[in-house]
Amino acid sequence: MQAWKKYQEENKERFLEELLGLLRIPSVSANSSHKPDMLTCAEAVKKSLLQAGASKAEIFETAGHPVVYAEKIVDASKPTVLVYGHYDVQPPDPLDLWESAPFEPSIRNGKIYARGSADDKGQFFMHVKALEVMQHSGNIPGNIKFIIEGEEEIGSPSLGAFIKSHKDLLKADVILISDTSMISLDEPSIDTGVRGLAYIQVEITGPNRDLHSGVYGGAVANPITILAQMIASCHDENNHIRIPGFYDDVLESSAADRKKMAQAPFNEKEYMADLGVKKLWGEKGYTTNERTGIRPTLEVNGIWGGYQGEGSKTVLPSKAFAKISARLIPNQSSGKITRLLLDYFKKVAPETVSVHAFDLHGGEPYLTPLDSKAYLAAEKAMETTFGKKPVPVRGGGSIPICSLFEKELGIKIVFMGFGLDSDNLHSPNEKFDIANFYKGIETIPYFHQYFAEMKG
Amino acid sequence: MQAWKKYQEENKERFLEELLGLLRIPSVSANSSHKPDMLTCAEAVKKSLLQAGASKAEIFETAGHPVVYAEKIVDASKPTVLVYGHYDVQPPDPLDLWESAPFEPSIRNGKIYARGSADDKGQFFMHVKALEVMQHSGNIPGNIKFIIEGEEEIGSPSLGAFIKSHKDLLKADVILISDTSMISLDEPSIDTGVRGLAYIQVEITGPNRDLHSGVYGGAVANPITILAQMIASCHDENNHIRIPGFYDDVLESSAADRKKMAQAPFNEKEYMADLGVKKLWGEKGYTTNERTGIRPTLEVNGIWGGYQGEGSKTVLPSKAFAKISARLIPNQSSGKITRLLLDYFKKVAPETVSVHAFDLHGGEPYLTPLDSKAYLAAEKAMETTFGKKPVPVRGGGSIPICSLFEKELGIKIVFMGFGLDSDNLHSPNEKFDIANFYKGIETIPYFHQYFAEMKG
Repeated sequence: MQAWKKYQEENKERFLEELLGLLRIPSVSANSSHKPDMLTCAEAVKKSLLQAGASKAEIFETAGHPVVYAEKIVDASKPTVLVYGHYDVQPPDPLDLWESAPFEPSIRNGKIYARGSADDKGQFFMHVKALEVMQHSGNIPGNIKFIIEGEEEIGSPSLGAFIKSHKDLLKADVILISDTSMISLDEPSIDTGVRGLAYIQVEITGPNRDLHSGVYGGAVANPITILAQMIASCHDENNHIRIPGFYDDVLESSAADRKKMAQAPFNEKEYMADLGVKKLWGEKGYTTNERTGIRPTLEVNGIWGGYQGEGSKTVLPSKAFAKISARLIPNQSSGKITRLLLDYFKKVAPETVSVHAFDLHGGEPYLTPLDSKAYLAAEKAMETTFGKKPVPVRGGGSIPICSLFEKELGIKIVFMGFGLDSDNLHSPNEKFDIANFYKGIETIPYFHQYFAEMKG
Repeated sequence: MQAWKKYQEENKERFLEELLGLLRIPSVSANSSHKPDMLTCAEAVKKSLLQAGASKAEIFETAGHPVVYAEKIVDASKPTVLVYGHYDVQPPDPLDLWESAPFEPSIRNGKIYARGSADDKGQFFMHVKALEVMQHSGNIPGNIKFIIEGEEEIGSPSLGAFIKSHKDLLKADVILISDTSMISLDEPSIDTGVRGLAYIQVEITGPNRDLHSGVYGGAVANPITILAQMIASCHDENNHIRIPGFYDDVLESSAADRKKMAQAPFNEKEYMADLGVKKLWGEKGYTTNERTGIRPTLEVNGIWGGYQGEGSKTVLPSKAFAKISARLIPNQSSGKITRLLLDYFKKVAPETVSVHAFDLHGGEPYLTPLDSKAYLAAEKAMETTFGKKPVPVRGGGSIPICSLFEKELGIKIVFMGFGLDSDNLHSPNEKFDIANFYKGIETIPYFHQYFAEMKG
């Protein structure tokens, strides 16, 4: 195992350079104009896997963006780990808030600033480089498969069909994902779950054209005002979500579980200072970590309508729009909550406007059992390289495909994330600490080692 | 007077061509990138006035966009009419909803489609052409002065100072403005008032950067949600405005006045069909015409925040913005209502966010006395050319400078508008009916005639 460390030390500058190359490709899945970049990125991922030592790597076309598959089979009798990651990234908007260009990686204070640095190029690339480390050190403890997709940030619409038609190819004993965060290098942690997602768009139409707000104002419903009223109606005064049926399937955490979770280090003052807010917000009766971990939430991700330019324009607009998403916890169903949301916005709309609401994407919540071999292997691997046992925490984000993986392949998932909550995922100035990148590459081979030992 | 008509008939195609030339200049006052176009437009207006017969025309620089002044003094002992208009136009957004380019005038079904066609280039240009008609027919009944400004659509910030420092130059017996509408060519009407305006922008900041809505959603106030709640709080269930003090200075119309106003022709079914709405909206206890005429209103003119692009982005944005304006009636004060609005949005904001709210522009409401000589002259002029006495109506729009004119120059204002409510002012596909343009040119000389006679 010393050979792993030695090889990594000798090659770490190159590992970083290679990651920067990947980050320069603007692989934005949400925007159709980036279609060629998606293909370029898939090709680069495939090439990197072959160079790292994969015995086979292939790009599979889908109805949307391609999937990259690769494998290194060392011994059919040994256990197989399926590494999942995604090479697509979130749109970089708003561009003017970036301190350096999102697709021109900039290293400042030991951090790589670029869109996708932490989510998820920097993280799946740790697995590519870990393969190279194991390969060149002559010590690969088990079989490794890779599935790196290009549609995670838009809800993985094509991956379900791919998994269903490639069950044999993807056969494995566990799925390992690095697309979550940990508390810090000093306080290692493992996400034991991801929240589900139900993401919709709501479009309100008032009059059939933009109107002069003086001539018509006061006599015709303003779609912005109506949309604001509809959004305001979604939470009550305790920030409890008012959409009928929303909490019906929520699996309440036990008092014991909540007590255990409360032991994770959390400094509310530092949290507020980091975000620059004077007061936190959230559902009454729950702590901040509970609000983002064990409770479902509803967020407006975007809103627009009317005049947004310089100065003033006295218009009563024809249309107003919002993007709205809910984070879900077990046992809520993404499909059911999506229907509840769509129904709600259609139902609460007054007769003075018309509503068009539709599904944008979704995913189911997922929980990793703390007594699974995969979780125990991850725990032991991190303990080996961090010198400290990681604490289990419930993550707030979503990886839509998790429940589908489990359903179709019949295997468990373990999250071993090396990012930080402060990495500005989905925001301007996304970053990934170089130390975390290297720590990931160092830790991953131990996961394969311990998992192979436990199975054997 | 037959000579007026004859000259107009012989030159009407050229009059239209000249208007189209003016409409091709994108004189958008709100957008600083159009500064050169504003100067080009002012020069074109000055040139058109000199060509029409003005004995003097001049461009005055201001702190903002220039003012064009011109005059035709025929006899110092005769009364003087000061014509006010504006050569600036509203921004053309949203561009994709225009059927032809906003600054490439297109004539379809007898209508001129272009930004500014009705508001106000087409309307003030009727006065320029009426001067030419009177000049070339050798019959100018009185003195005429012109003040055509370039900042009406942004609240005339520089005009006050100009008026104050040019009181002698602007000395007149009445101010005549064609910047309002009438019911139709079959149902002529005269606006007897304009509403005031208080226009503000509200900016809500939650966290200091855009956040991942999964990692932070539910624990930090979402500025869009908070802004929606603040906007929703502005109206009660009867669509009465809830901002404290908002109605304090409202001059309630008498039952007799309301009864008289109710006699103006209005077909609610046609009104709804034209707007494409199933149900109208407005303050309980008032009719549609009352809601837009004798009541103050509050509209959201624009809103934006978070992700507005294609597909989905799971962001909890740092900021959300809205442009909000109130239309005011006598005796509300624009300054006072602006303060009330700014205070309200600062006061209702929860501690979880910070608010930056500021004034964008404003103007006072104005009423024309129905027994004034100017109103009677306008009434008689329209009766002459329409064959029918116009009905007085209360307009919903605003001409911010009216009350200042009266205060500084000590004279009354009369509105003689030839546009229609359906002209799509401030909206895509703004238009002006060619028949209305010609009817205006035909009617204006009679106003000068009757006003001169009444004074004499």
